[in-house]
Amino acid sequence: MTGPGELSGVLGVDSGGSGLRAVLAVEGGREGRGTAVPLKSEEPVRTGPRGIDAGHLMEQLVPMARQLMADAGITTLRAVTVGAAGYTSLGNALRADLPSALARELGVRRLALAADGVTAYVGALGQRPGAVVAAGTGLIAIGTDLTRWRRADGWGHLLGDNGSGAWIGRAGLDAALRAHDGRSGGSARLLARGEVMFGPAGTWPGQLYPRPDRPAMLASFAPEVAACADGDPVAVDILAEAARHIADAARAVCPAGGEVFGEVQVALTGGLFKMGDPLLVPLRAALTDRLPYARQVPAAGDPLAGAVRIAVDLAEDRLTLPREEDMLYVIAETPAPEALAPGTPAP
Amino acid sequence: MTGPGELSGVLGVDSGGSGLRAVLAVEGGREGRGTAVPLKSEEPVRTGPRGIDAGHLMEQLVPMARQLMADAGITTLRAVTVGAAGYTSLGNALRADLPSALARELGVRRLALAADGVTAYVGALGQRPGAVVAAGTGLIAIGTDLTRWRRADGWGHLLGDNGSGAWIGRAGLDAALRAHDGRSGGSARLLARGEVMFGPAGTWPGQLYPRPDRPAMLASFAPEVAACADGDPVAVDILAEAARHIADAARAVCPAGGEVFGEVQVALTGGLFKMGDPLLVPLRAALTDRLPYARQVPAAGDPLAGAVRIAVDLAEDRLTLPREEDMLYVIAETPAPEALAPGTPAP
Repeated sequence: MTGPGELSGVLGVDSGGSGLRAVLAVEGGREGRGTAVPLKSEEPVRTGPRGIDAGHLMEQLVPMARQLMADAGITTLRAVTVGAAGYTSLGNALRADLPSALARELGVRRLALAADGVTAYVGALGQRPGAVVAAGTGLIAIGTDLTRWRRADGWGHLLGDNGSGAWIGRAGLDAALRAHDGRSGGSARLLARGEVMFGPAGTWPGQLYPRPDRPAMLASFAPEVAACADGDPVAVDILAEAARHIADAARAVCPAGGEVFGEVQVALTGGLFKMGDPLLVPLRAALTDRLPYARQVPAAGDPLAGAVRIAVDLAEDRLTLPREEDMLYVIAETPAPEALAPGTPAP
Repeated sequence: MTGPGELSGVLGVDSGGSGLRAVLAVEGGREGRGTAVPLKSEEPVRTGPRGIDAGHLMEQLVPMARQLMADAGITTLRAVTVGAAGYTSLGNALRADLPSALARELGVRRLALAADGVTAYVGALGQRPGAVVAAGTGLIAIGTDLTRWRRADGWGHLLGDNGSGAWIGRAGLDAALRAHDGRSGGSARLLARGEVMFGPAGTWPGQLYPRPDRPAMLASFAPEVAACADGDPVAVDILAEAARHIADAARAVCPAGGEVFGEVQVALTGGLFKMGDPLLVPLRAALTDRLPYARQVPAAGDPLAGAVRIAVDLAEDRLTLPREEDMLYVIAETPAPEALAPGTPAP
């Protein structure tokens, strides 16, 4: 579909709690062309009665995609990947509406829809077997043996997300209020930190419960817990328990290593791990304890990089990741001509 | 103020999450007259920008009070006690507006405003030193040495309420989802119970997070945890931890016993304790361990009975409980004539 002298590209999209990000990779990112600077929308894509709102997503995506294409001088999108938070349970409308909308508006015929955990996985580890923990305010673990996807946790701040920023922050505020009340297990240092951050303890419920973004407020206290880990045993215990929860989730999704798969890798991605050593030191130990056969590696890239990677591999007909409707859903109704031509790299 | 042949009474009011209850005690409940059947409103009193809405409370209370008075043939209310959930942090408007409104509408000159924890305390133990844990969806411990009030927890389902119905239910659902994911610490029995109650686990976040009454939904699972305690070690552990949290809160507010106060008592009140032995057996043990000097006694009555008791003692000038603006606030601008007359029982 790309004529002589025309440039093609692929588009990676990450739809999350703070908005939509989109980035273009020219010529599939080959030949040193790489990806342009991502564009970012102002608002998160809405969720309606049918799930994630495909129309609202398109409203944001189409002008961003057109601008990215114009800036790069690109006329053809060979593939698009949209990774979306909430996709697994709320992705029906995206599967129903996005393929035709993207074909109509942007001429896109190859499309992958993915859970944000899948794009996080691919961004971190690529098409290798292993486990990735993606954590910020929430937490989910995704793993694959390349035959199927496994996920653990990601249940939100009331049902799980154990070890996440919201979990650590909540545990820290609980310990602060124990000190306030004179109950056991309290931390006077966390109480002092909390009162600097939020004012007198008696005002905390009135600040927290009316907010729509309660998990974010809880998570905002997590760095204070990390800051107290240089000597406060309660803070140290909270982070050690978070580390055990995170390693538990990784173990639940990680394929067995050794003779079957050779090496498996485990990686961490997301804002939580910017907390540094107070969390990472106990976490590395917990991962070594629970996943002795997995090599701990740095995440190669973020979920947006994972979306681009899936789009590139889809365009090149070399996407070997497991396809499951609620994790990684692929539409390739009209194979691109070059995928069938001689000289195309084998999948 | 009561002429010959006229009957007087006192009014007790309990304003909580499920509405307003009011009950009348004729002649202060003396001489076998006792209290009438309480009336109950349809809706909880609203909370507005100024705190608990005094106007909305009066809208509900005045017709109920007039009906109770008419049914009992009572012309004079010697005292009223209003116990209200949220009073401690949200009671400003009640203190500002209720005294004049009650004087105008019902001729009431003696008024006590109390935190619902205080009415729960008085309902359970009366004017004795000790500690009371009031628990249902939430949990608070209130104690007094008769010189001041102490409270512990009651911070709500995200900051505390440890050991409450919401806490137990949430821990049970967390264990269910651990089993679902293959994480450690899971309970297949709790997962099966949860799926009977709420459907497939994958649908739980979509059911829970959009609801305004998330703590109530969490608490609705607590009885299932109790039902699994006949053999499921995860359920047993959850209830044992809840018991330790509850006993911790009681210890934080209980005055020391022994030489200073003689016997102190500890009582439990509220819907949580209808859960029975699966919670009560470990809880009695935890209380014995943490409060060996406190005698565990049954609660004599509920918070509404506590409100009546405070009103009776206020009318009779024998209220000896600590008065603190945000716990128990007393207005006695116009002492009733009989309180000053000879023959009145000494305070």
